[in-house]
Amino acid sequence: MNYPNGIKKKFKKEINYGNRGQSLEDDINETNKYYLLNDVAIIHKKPISLTLRKVDYPCRKEAVVKEAYFKTPSTTDYNGVYKGKYLDFEAKETNLKSFPKSNIHKHQLDHLKNISRHGGIGFIIIKFKFCNEVYYISSDLIIDYFENNLRKSIPYSYIKDKGHLIDIKYKPRIDYLTVVDKILGGNL
Amino acid sequence: MNYPNGIKKKFKKEINYGNRGQSLEDDINETNKYYLLNDVAIIHKKPISLTLRKVDYPCRKEAVVKEAYFKTPSTTDYNGVYKGKYLDFEAKETNLKSFPKSNIHKHQLDHLKNISRHGGIGFIIIKFKFCNEVYYISSDLIIDYFENNLRKSIPYSYIKDKGHLIDIKYKPRIDYLTVVDKILGGNL
Repeated sequence: MNYPNGIKKKFKKEINYGNRGQSLEDDINETNKYYLLNDVAIIHKKPISLTLRKVDYPCRKEAVVKEAYFKTPSTTDYNGVYKGKYLDFEAKETNLKSFPKSNIHKHQLDHLKNISRHGGIGFIIIKFKFCNEVYYISSDLIIDYFENNLRKSIPYSYIKDKGHLIDIKYKPRIDYLTVVDKILGGNL
Repeated sequence: MNYPNGIKKKFKKEINYGNRGQSLEDDINETNKYYLLNDVAIIHKKPISLTLRKVDYPCRKEAVVKEAYFKTPSTTDYNGVYKGKYLDFEAKETNLKSFPKSNIHKHQLDHLKNISRHGGIGFIIIKFKFCNEVYYISSDLIIDYFENNLRKSIPYSYIKDKGHLIDIKYKPRIDYLTVVDKILGGNL
């Protein structure tokens, strides 16, 4: 098993100056909170998936996990409801000028494939740190690329071309529902 | 904090003889697996929500959680997509002849209220162990009861009357989508 995404970071977090260097995950979480508070959509991040091995009950009111292991996720990190539709996505950032297939598990791609077949809206939000750009890309296009190309990485140009640039704003930070709106409106 | 639901059970599981005494959670998980394998719907149980305090990295490939605490859930246990619709529910079983309000968190009721306002299908699956009956009841009806009654418990008769009995079968165990089908078809 590899290091679980985001775990190391949480324990070695750098000091933040006015959101400079804030992780994509933090930005998405803030965005979802904004959507929730403003009654726009109900999207939550799923808890980290763990296998519990040892749980102590030192007193009646408290249980402490003393041993647990990270599981490889079989679904994505985020899902929820927007205008009655089921939304499901994964958010990934990369330092590279391409999106490596290893950044997303096979199980997650299979899950997203299922989602879109069942009428849900499945996508991936990718942040390229080299240019500080965030893209929305349909999971079908990502799956299509991996199934029809031997390359282990999707070039930045493909995502720039096929995906949709999301403006980074003050509030909400990553307003990805603007893209979903275009899809629902039949404009994409 | 109270004992998190289902945790104790997992560590003190009784021997199962041909599913007699199998928990509602196990039955729902089997049902969801059946739906997934037969490509009917994609419904997953969310992982247990924990606050991680201490994580060890004994070697490159493995991370071990050494200290974590259970969080009060702010959403429900299950969600997913069926025929393009967003589904969200909680499953509870009780030994009583009523459904105590304390069995469900305020946050979870607020969450279900939001879900139905945003066009999702929110419900609760309740198993009454005294008669071995499982009911589907719309979360709106549960919320309505608690908001308009001073009682701290919903009587069995209310759920029998307003809810929908789900047959316990061999496969899938708790076929709750038959009720969702009626709702989608405008028959409920």
